Amino acid sequence: MTQKADTLFTNAIVLTMDEKLNQYDPGAVAVKGDTIIAVGTEEKIKKEYTAGEVIDCGGKILMPGLVNAHTHVPMTLLRGLADDLRLDVWLMGYMLPVEREFVSPEFVRLGTLLACAEQIRSGVTTFNDMYFFEDDIAQAAADAGMRAVCGQSVMKYPAPDADAFEDSIAYAREFIKKWKGHPLIIPAIAPHAPYSTTPEILRACAEIAKEHDVPLHIHISETAFEVENMRSEQGMPVVPYVKKQGVLEAKVIAAHCVHIDVGEMKTLQHVNAGIAHNPSSNLKLASGFAPVTRMLENGLNVGIGTDGPASNNDLDMFEEVRLASFVAKSASNDPTALPAATTLLMATRMGAQALHIGHLTGSLEPGKRADLILVDTSPLHNSPRFKRDPMNAYAQLVFASKSTDVTDVMVNGKWLMRGKELLTLNEAELLQQARELAQKIDAFLIEREQSVLSKLIALGGSMEEESFEVQAKVRVAEPASFVQKMKRKEIEITAHKHYLQYDNYFIFDDPSQGRLRFREDNLINEKGEVESVRSRLTLLGQQREGEVGHDVLLSRSRFLAPAIHTLRFYREYFKPAQEVAVEKDRLRWHIRYKDTEFFVNLDEVKEPQMGHFLEVKSRTWSRKDADLKAELANELLNLLGADGAETVTQDLIEVLTAN
Amino acid sequence: MTQKADTLFTNAIVLTMDEKLNQYDPGAVAVKGDTIIAVGTEEKIKKEYTAGEVIDCGGKILMPGLVNAHTHVPMTLLRGLADDLRLDVWLMGYMLPVEREFVSPEFVRLGTLLACAEQIRSGVTTFNDMYFFEDDIAQAAADAGMRAVCGQSVMKYPAPDADAFEDSIAYAREFIKKWKGHPLIIPAIAPHAPYSTTPEILRACAEIAKEHDVPLHIHISETAFEVENMRSEQGMPVVPYVKKQGVLEAKVIAAHCVHIDVGEMKTLQHVNAGIAHNPSSNLKLASGFAPVTRMLENGLNVGIGTDGPASNNDLDMFEEVRLASFVAKSASNDPTALPAATTLLMATRMGAQALHIGHLTGSLEPGKRADLILVDTSPLHNSPRFKRDPMNAYAQLVFASKSTDVTDVMVNGKWLMRGKELLTLNEAELLQQARELAQKIDAFLIEREQSVLSKLIALGGSMEEESFEVQAKVRVAEPASFVQKMKRKEIEITAHKHYLQYDNYFIFDDPSQGRLRFREDNLINEKGEVESVRSRLTLLGQQREGEVGHDVLLSRSRFLAPAIHTLRFYREYFKPAQEVAVEKDRLRWHIRYKDTEFFVNLDEVKEPQMGHFLEVKSRTWSRKDADLKAELANELLNLLGADGAETVTQDLIEVLTAN
Repeated sequence: MTQKADTLFTNAIVLTMDEKLNQYDPGAVAVKGDTIIAVGTEEKIKKEYTAGEVIDCGGKILMPGLVNAHTHVPMTLLRGLADDLRLDVWLMGYMLPVEREFVSPEFVRLGTLLACAEQIRSGVTTFNDMYFFEDDIAQAAADAGMRAVCGQSVMKYPAPDADAFEDSIAYAREFIKKWKGHPLIIPAIAPHAPYSTTPEILRACAEIAKEHDVPLHIHISETAFEVENMRSEQGMPVVPYVKKQGVLEAKVIAAHCVHIDVGEMKTLQHVNAGIAHNPSSNLKLASGFAPVTRMLENGLNVGIGTDGPASNNDLDMFEEVRLASFVAKSASNDPTALPAATTLLMATRMGAQALHIGHLTGSLEPGKRADLILVDTSPLHNSPRFKRDPMNAYAQLVFASKSTDVTDVMVNGKWLMRGKELLTLNEAELLQQARELAQKIDAFLIEREQSVLSKLIALGGSMEEESFEVQAKVRVAEPASFVQKMKRKEIEITAHKHYLQYDNYFIFDDPSQGRLRFREDNLINEKGEVESVRSRLTLLGQQREGEVGHDVLLSRSRFLAPAIHTLRFYREYFKPAQEVAVEKDRLRWHIRYKDTEFFVNLDEVKEPQMGHFLEVKSRTWSRKDADLKAELANELLNLLGADGAETVTQDLIEVLTAN
Repeated sequence: MTQKADTLFTNAIVLTMDEKLNQYDPGAVAVKGDTIIAVGTEEKIKKEYTAGEVIDCGGKILMPGLVNAHTHVPMTLLRGLADDLRLDVWLMGYMLPVEREFVSPEFVRLGTLLACAEQIRSGVTTFNDMYFFEDDIAQAAADAGMRAVCGQSVMKYPAPDADAFEDSIAYAREFIKKWKGHPLIIPAIAPHAPYSTTPEILRACAEIAKEHDVPLHIHISETAFEVENMRSEQGMPVVPYVKKQGVLEAKVIAAHCVHIDVGEMKTLQHVNAGIAHNPSSNLKLASGFAPVTRMLENGLNVGIGTDGPASNNDLDMFEEVRLASFVAKSASNDPTALPAATTLLMATRMGAQALHIGHLTGSLEPGKRADLILVDTSPLHNSPRFKRDPMNAYAQLVFASKSTDVTDVMVNGKWLMRGKELLTLNEAELLQQARELAQKIDAFLIEREQSVLSKLIALGGSMEEESFEVQAKVRVAEPASFVQKMKRKEIEITAHKHYLQYDNYFIFDDPSQGRLRFREDNLINEKGEVESVRSRLTLLGQQREGEVGHDVLLSRSRFLAPAIHTLRFYREYFKPAQEVAVEKDRLRWHIRYKDTEFFVNLDEVKEPQMGHFLEVKSRTWSRKDADLKAELANELLNLLGADGAETVTQDLIEVLTAN
């Protein structure tokens, strides 16, 4: 007697991706409700099952839907916004400023729906997300009909959805309670990365994940820099560090793992952590080559992810699968590494296992949810087709098929795409909304990019500190005599310091932008050793405000900020037309003279060699005050015996860029 | 007054890819006959030109067609035939045997038309080919309407179109004369590679290229192995070697250049050689990471190619362009390396320059041929679109566009595709023919793969040498005494050798396949040094033919061949179910006894340790002869004092695999 199914797929090349990699050609699959109830040869299944809907697959490949093991779906809206940049410039110069300005529940909903449309079109049925406002992402994914692990981000910094990490954790707890048990959505908690969290955050997230038995999604060892920092600060690599915080007691999904060693692999395998490998992102950001073959040898479940579409720049898992194989071969210098079948497995069953939902999806097996796709292998770019070796079928899919060959997609027994028509999403409407938002983002950035100052402000974390200075400077031949003269009783020394200063001036084509100075101050102690180093960024007004009295200048420093990034970061972010480096040895006195505070600097300009300069400076706030201080500054120069010396009315940088 | 054009493209985002990377949005292009006559803003061009046909591009990108700088187009027919293999196994185990059997003028015509269809669909307007029967390839490309540099292969081995290289050279000469001056086809000569040619061939090819002023297309430094060999055999790397043969006096197109140094780059730049970089192929075959950034810094014109579709497995230049950028970034550990605009330039204008046809194609500039494409950037995977930075347009194309976004293609002023419909090719018919041919190739390989013997024969260069042997063997405790007894006067010693033998037996699941033995014989001289090494491959019958008399065996060796490949090659090619290694120390005497030739072997089996064995053997050809020799063999054993020893009737490998 035959059994009753809802849908019967016939006349397909069935790639089950099960333990034995069974293939049936022609094969058939029976679905009832949300579940696959039978898989086998067409002859067998047709004998055993009848169904209300019988689908002739026309010789297409019928296989499990792809599992995108790591992404940030709302970033579809930031795709192509900024490319060919280093990670820090991309992230802190563009992504974070735009996210601070634009990310909202509406933003993530639109971005998620766009991402679902793109993923359904390319055969993805499950994705693993990490972003902000994850409740809205979960709702959008559920509305689109996709299966998703949704991880609410937690970071030590303020985020678009939380002023402090405690808010994110509270949000995550409510979010998990709300979605736990949903047929499509698996809520999760996502401490962003070890470097962007604290031990306290990691422990709190692990506790919540354990308490609610949900996955914990985290970036691990994406860059060599991250690992170096961890080693120097904590004396251990990243995996032992997160283990110490209890993270590995949860069901971990570790994204990237580009720079982990075999010991860390064994640790992760021991706790059944899943890995998400992201070839496009790793290549595009030059993060390195993840040791995928080694991870597989060590028994880890490694899935494949697209990462966010702003660093990829798409959500095309066919491309990722092909790249995963290509990169493993080239990085290991072995063309037999990561063959097609293994790579496709990583994007299906093993990917689902990496997300801790292997019991639900990832292969065509009775009892699993009906998450499946049809792929047309008849197009030109994939012809002809060889059948000599069962492996040919996987090679065809991995090395030549395109995401655009996917024609039909079913998730949880429900059709999301038939004959390339999306059934749950209004593509035209989404595209229109995205275009409108993109115009706003474009306008925001265009306005910001118009001035060096606004680009500086966009970086955040820095303070506007406009200051005016009175400045008198002379060229001196015998610097040693001044050090003696500083001991005169009229001068009260309140502080004395010795610095080595390395300045880099960024010059822009438009002089009205001002000049940006990156200064590294090395404080030298009495033994001549570097005692401390600090860096500051100063946006200098392009011109002197004018002269105050004879030979004394009024200068304006428009903006001052601690330089928390590297010189290289600022260079790539601000893209100056010209750059000038200056190295100075500075003896600095903070003094009081006639009840007025002055700085006295005795500088030796060592690079380029320009000799010695004596400078007397004081902050000022009014023209009247400036006039008074100009007079005092001239007195001081006389007192120090520099009254005959050559006056310098230009900044060093003006002299250096005058030619 | 306005000028008259044939076709006016309006309402497009025009990416000219000219020297200044001019973009016009909205822009327009005017075409007359086969030539672009104007490019600029829509406003300007519309004012200056009228045309019979005005095409509203609907905001799509209008750009030069892509240049595929290196391929072997007929290999579309071998796509997906064999993957995840090492280069030698792939080439000598699969490609060459199939090519020897199937490649003909009809084969290359069909393969070329298929490749043209695929390339037109993905926006390629020019390709640079190297294969056999290039006259038929050129005709097929011209029929399809594509621009192509067609290089007739010349090799030192017999080829499908030539028994000897002289035939190829004569063919090439006629081919070049016939096609020189054609509006679409640029004939060329293609000495395959330095390792597959001779200095004589290289010199002859260079002469022809110079005489007819046509390009010379050659594979250069694809693998590290090739460079190592060249250094050890010629004492120089590959570029100086080909220079020595006069190759660089021609207009060179050097494919791959994965392993060239800066000196070689400068040499190539000095002669204006073009480079074809093939990222997919280099990754998939694990050839290495070509130093593209360094080549560009050294002023070389570097184009991008797909290589043959059997090692890629498609002709998708969008994928290659993206990969070229990704790989340059990751290999140099610098995400700012090879930005989108530069990479797209390599696939357009610079690619055409690398093929020495930069004056004809590669950019949208007045005077160049109308080779252009329309790309739709409205699909989901490429939305939204940002305009803040002119570079956004290139990033969008390179990092997110797909070949399937190409909607229209024109070559030489003639439409090849409109609205995704091919106009010069019958796709369905080509696919049907390809399917039929693939079935034949499949059948050929399936038959071959059914037996180890036919796989061995398919490798070529080996000889069938069936031989029967009479064999008597005993286990011995005191080997030294036998060496003495060999000096008895009844025994005439004609030769005496000492070997160290390393055997690797391949065992297959089906015992009727026999066993394959890879033997490395190390001949040891009187000083105990290795004097020479030779390797042989022997396919051993799975069973003894029977016993001859008491304790003497009749054995059959079915096939014998010099092992010209490595043990690793044979392992990956034959894929044995099991492998057993045996190491023996063998003293071997070639003797005459009663006018009959015998071999006497005194073996110490060292790995695994199994003690000493004495073996007496003789070739035989009839049952009667075998009976006689069996009797003599027993006499010999008695003479040597082994009459009481334990008889061994099994081969070592039978003993070792018995458990």
